[in-house]
Amino acid sequence: MEAPRTPDHFPQLEHLGDAAPHVERILEIIQHIDLFEDFDRNEIEHLASYMICFRAPAGTEIIREGDPGDFMLLLIEGGVEIMKKDTTGVQARVGVAGAGKTLGEMSLIDGEPRFASCLATSELVFAVLDREHLTRLIAEEPGIGVKILMELLMLLNQRLRSVSKQLMQCLEKRQPRIS
Amino acid sequence: MEAPRTPDHFPQLEHLGDAAPHVERILEIIQHIDLFEDFDRNEIEHLASYMICFRAPAGTEIIREGDPGDFMLLLIEGGVEIMKKDTTGVQARVGVAGAGKTLGEMSLIDGEPRFASCLATSELVFAVLDREHLTRLIAEEPGIGVKILMELLMLLNQRLRSVSKQLMQCLEKRQPRIS
Repeated sequence: MEAPRTPDHFPQLEHLGDAAPHVERILEIIQHIDLFEDFDRNEIEHLASYMICFRAPAGTEIIREGDPGDFMLLLIEGGVEIMKKDTTGVQARVGVAGAGKTLGEMSLIDGEPRFASCLATSELVFAVLDREHLTRLIAEEPGIGVKILMELLMLLNQRLRSVSKQLMQCLEKRQPRIS
Repeated sequence: MEAPRTPDHFPQLEHLGDAAPHVERILEIIQHIDLFEDFDRNEIEHLASYMICFRAPAGTEIIREGDPGDFMLLLIEGGVEIMKKDTTGVQARVGVAGAGKTLGEMSLIDGEPRFASCLATSELVFAVLDREHLTRLIAEEPGIGVKILMELLMLLNQRLRSVSKQLMQCLEKRQPRIS
């Protein structure tokens, strides 16, 4: 078993420096990045300087359910499967994500254990934004800081509406109304 | 049927001015206000000046599922039942909330229709924070603005974790694993 992720993140992976060299690619896929849709080039460049990039081979578990973690990932290249254990501990695939998607926002925000695992299905390049860099970004570039907080709010909000709706439908099917 | 809420909010209710006179009460119940737990007195006073207060008699539907709305409420006095329609249109109680709780954050953030209704079970005093005032607050008092965005993020995040967990459990019960 690997040690839990340290604040240095992914010591076992190839470290690619900050995300600045990936700004072109980020701008290329930006229409698919819900989180950055309202950012201009200049803002993306600023933001990229607060993110650190890594490369991971296919098969790497980049996020493990239950692990500590206070960062999110932006997938720049490649794809992952999102896996979640049921109450008996059996893991099942609950989703997939590809370039332009963000992963792990919940732990970035609250520092609580990871809700699900993410397993690379191909070679990945991804950028990490952790709590420390987000806090620095807010202090040093409040305009961009507020924008990313608003985007994170929109993203979580959208997800909360969707999951709440699914829960209502599930509960309804489980407990049919007696007519 | 009442007209949808206008941007002036609750023209039919007694308008109590801004929330400044309620700062003492807000500080009194603050330990129960998840949203404001990290705010000091000075910050609450600033924030209160961006919120508008109303009184509503028991029985008032202060939020109606499906209505437009871009504001949240902070309950200062009294309690509500939270009601949600199932897919057949039958309304059921899905929760209750009392003084110190916030309601309607999702529509504040995305401006989408209300997810559920809130019905006053006793006389209410509540403060409204709408998108326009939140935007002004962020522009005029960025420190407090960032803090409230962070608190909203924590709140939605907590709720997303809780609802996601409930959904996983519900799906598991509905589709038992074949062993």
